[in-house]
Amino acid sequence: MIRILCVGKLKEPYIQSLILDYAKRISKYHQLQIIEVKDENSLEKERDSLLKNFKNNEYRIALCLEGKSFDSIEFAHKINETFINYPIITFIIGSSLGLSEDIKNACHLKISFSKLTFPHGLFRGILLEQIYRSFKINNNETYHK
Amino acid sequence: MIRILCVGKLKEPYIQSLILDYAKRISKYHQLQIIEVKDENSLEKERDSLLKNFKNNEYRIALCLEGKSFDSIEFAHKINETFINYPIITFIIGSSLGLSEDIKNACHLKISFSKLTFPHGLFRGILLEQIYRSFKINNNETYHK
Repeated sequence: MIRILCVGKLKEPYIQSLILDYAKRISKYHQLQIIEVKDENSLEKERDSLLKNFKNNEYRIALCLEGKSFDSIEFAHKINETFINYPIITFIIGSSLGLSEDIKNACHLKISFSKLTFPHGLFRGILLEQIYRSFKINNNETYHK
Repeated sequence: MIRILCVGKLKEPYIQSLILDYAKRISKYHQLQIIEVKDENSLEKERDSLLKNFKNNEYRIALCLEGKSFDSIEFAHKINETFINYPIITFIIGSSLGLSEDIKNACHLKISFSKLTFPHGLFRGILLEQIYRSFKINNNETYHK
């Protein structure tokens, strides 16, 4: 199972549609669960909400600026390899406040998609697109767009 | 003026809305022009269409995987500095075929937003969001989302 653990509601309807589209596409390959916790005025409160949603048997990946950067092929292979040993991969995206150090330390891996900062809603869409792309790559299916 | 020179139509309505939203937001700060040339079955044809839309007094930035990476603050400063010497900054985004070497060589700068590959429509939205973010940064305005 792929889990997306994220903070805060989506505002723009077009971002909701973007995420819905890729969630639907991913679901043809793999079970997907998106868990959205409430955004708070403190990193600590957001940390506590995220921690409550951790599972024992999951491989946790934090998305943060200081993470390791991957290209799309490497990212796809990483997902493939991880599923050999773990039934669940959980991606964690912070709010505009970022992610608490406690959360980052509780993750098996930190990944950075870019040095640039993106809005968290758009970033959720970017992550889902890249996960979908991974399944296309791992299944040797063409994907040009 | 900011010009976005890109290849191929947008397919998904939500990507059109994403781009329209940020185009509207940018237009409060600066004149923006999006020029979309037809996607072809060859890089050379796409190159010729792009070349026809070059202007003499513009600073051209190619978006490509081998470009220099910037964080959002550096990107904002780069835009600010460039406008001191050039009236126009033109960003060039290729199709799923990429960008011809001739186009890259005719650019003043190559920028990479990520090692990951994105769909060209989504990438157009990501670029516009980052340009909008630059104006917010350069005007010392808060932008959290």
